[in-house]
Amino acid sequence: MNSCIIPCVPEDPQGDNRWMSQHERHVSEAKEREPDVILIGDSIIQQLQLRPIWNDLFEPLHCLNFGIGGDLTQGVLWRIQNGILDNIKPKACVLHVGTNNFGNTPQEISEGILTIVNEIKSRLPDCYIILLDLLPRGAKPNQLRVRNSKVNEIIHERVKLIPRLEVITVNTGLLQSDDTLSAQDMLDYLHPTDSCYRKIFEPVHELLLHILGEAKDVDKEVVGTQ
Amino acid sequence: MNSCIIPCVPEDPQGDNRWMSQHERHVSEAKEREPDVILIGDSIIQQLQLRPIWNDLFEPLHCLNFGIGGDLTQGVLWRIQNGILDNIKPKACVLHVGTNNFGNTPQEISEGILTIVNEIKSRLPDCYIILLDLLPRGAKPNQLRVRNSKVNEIIHERVKLIPRLEVITVNTGLLQSDDTLSAQDMLDYLHPTDSCYRKIFEPVHELLLHILGEAKDVDKEVVGTQ
Repeated sequence: MNSCIIPCVPEDPQGDNRWMSQHERHVSEAKEREPDVILIGDSIIQQLQLRPIWNDLFEPLHCLNFGIGGDLTQGVLWRIQNGILDNIKPKACVLHVGTNNFGNTPQEISEGILTIVNEIKSRLPDCYIILLDLLPRGAKPNQLRVRNSKVNEIIHERVKLIPRLEVITVNTGLLQSDDTLSAQDMLDYLHPTDSCYRKIFEPVHELLLHILGEAKDVDKEVVGTQ
Repeated sequence: MNSCIIPCVPEDPQGDNRWMSQHERHVSEAKEREPDVILIGDSIIQQLQLRPIWNDLFEPLHCLNFGIGGDLTQGVLWRIQNGILDNIKPKACVLHVGTNNFGNTPQEISEGILTIVNEIKSRLPDCYIILLDLLPRGAKPNQLRVRNSKVNEIIHERVKLIPRLEVITVNTGLLQSDDTLSAQDMLDYLHPTDSCYRKIFEPVHELLLHILGEAKDVDKEVVGTQ
């Protein structure tokens, strides 16, 4: 059985219950606010909220950030089934998760990501999904980079026919000519720095503006025909 | 045997060798630059480098940041014995590590921290050490907060007689009246936000200015007597 597609609360071996505390806060935020855009995923999504680009470009779009550090596809699935999408009608959802699914095959991980896409679509049929594929990791070539690349190949192939979904390739230009990752881009060879967040998320912001603009036009049409 | 005091390269179960890549980069940086201040520790030290306060207050002091996300006392010990202190003569060293030592007792963890202090002192006898005690973690009271508090109690008691060392209590004002941690201070209930980094590290910066000023005066005196 593929663990990546079975919704699951992660164990809390460290014993401070941080995952669940963050989830509960996200559910409260979803109840209290009316986001036009939501972002769901792991630490790469979460830490976006701590960067200057968040305040500059994302905050003004009425975004809610449902990133939790270290989360897996099965954790995101559980959270979606347990409150973070209730009470809200976002026009767009940005999704990035999978790099923490250690011990799973590329096939299993991509299945996990596609299951999340379907779960979001079934709950928010009108919501446009922006799927970011997986980033390279590690200073030098390694098995997890190979794994992430294979996940990306599968994903790009499988989502082609899904309407109102766009995959954004986020690793363009990150690998140097000798296949190393620069500390200028990822200080810990996993999480983007401020400048790297800009490289990755400026195209996401552009696409969001486009989606939100279209949604606004549709709203106007609806109002116009009433 | 207390694992916290045995220098150790952590396992790399994820398989991307990030810990060692970061260590090797730090050793290169130590060779190339002449830092007046070094910071050693885990992600809480490392992520300081990604915050505005780093460029504002720390970069101008000629700092090198030897933080590695997730590191343990035994990892820091290994790194100190394997190159990060070679070739440099910093005037001050900021140390913060221990919250990731899961499965160890407060006694063991504080022993690990004190062993690091001794290791730094034996290699850099003139270097002033600023030891930050452990931060609270988790949104609500939990066993790891209790553990970290006990580590802090032991540390504060045991370092009293060590010369040229100051412990800074970093958790002042972080817990709210109902003993919760605010997401405004720690989005993931572990790592400080920008504003929380300022609360914690402004006093560190103040102390560093004082230490570097004194060191400068001593340099002047030495020059004067030549």
